[in-house]
Amino acid sequence: MPIDIKIVYCKPCGFLPRALGLAEELLKYLSDINVTLTPGSNGIFDVYVNGELRFSRYQSRRFPEPNEIIEMVQRASPQP
Amino acid sequence: MPIDIKIVYCKPCGFLPRALGLAEELLKYLSDINVTLTPGSNGIFDVYVNGELRFSRYQSRRFPEPNEIIEMVQRASPQP
Repeated sequence: MPIDIKIVYCKPCGFLPRALGLAEELLKYLSDINVTLTPGSNGIFDVYVNGELRFSRYQSRRFPEPNEIIEMVQRASPQP
Repeated sequence: MPIDIKIVYCKPCGFLPRALGLAEELLKYLSDINVTLTPGSNGIFDVYVNGELRFSRYQSRRFPEPNEIIEMVQRASPQP
């Protein structure tokens, strides 16, 4: 069962390249995932894993590092 | 109501950069859409619009041009 990751990014702020970069890292290093890119506004840069908000730029006052999202997803993956 | 676009690309074939490039063009030029990237295999490069297969590399024997997908999505958008 693939893990669904959603990246909501502020389009007017020009965060699309950053969102694509994160998507690329996730898709390169993780298997059995889907990555959805959703435009937003007002400085948003949120990452959801299976529908749960796991990173918010508002709360953290920074952008996520790809590694921390990769680790989040690996923890969310059912171990064989 | 955003339009959902899904790009299924062959990961082992190295089609991720091409899928990211198409996603970038769609997200740049279209508003009110979500783009999902889904790894696949066996040379696949399919584009779904709202769950409907609208481009298949198997059938067309080529990759899609961003413009033709943009036009498909614009036609699928309800006119105000």
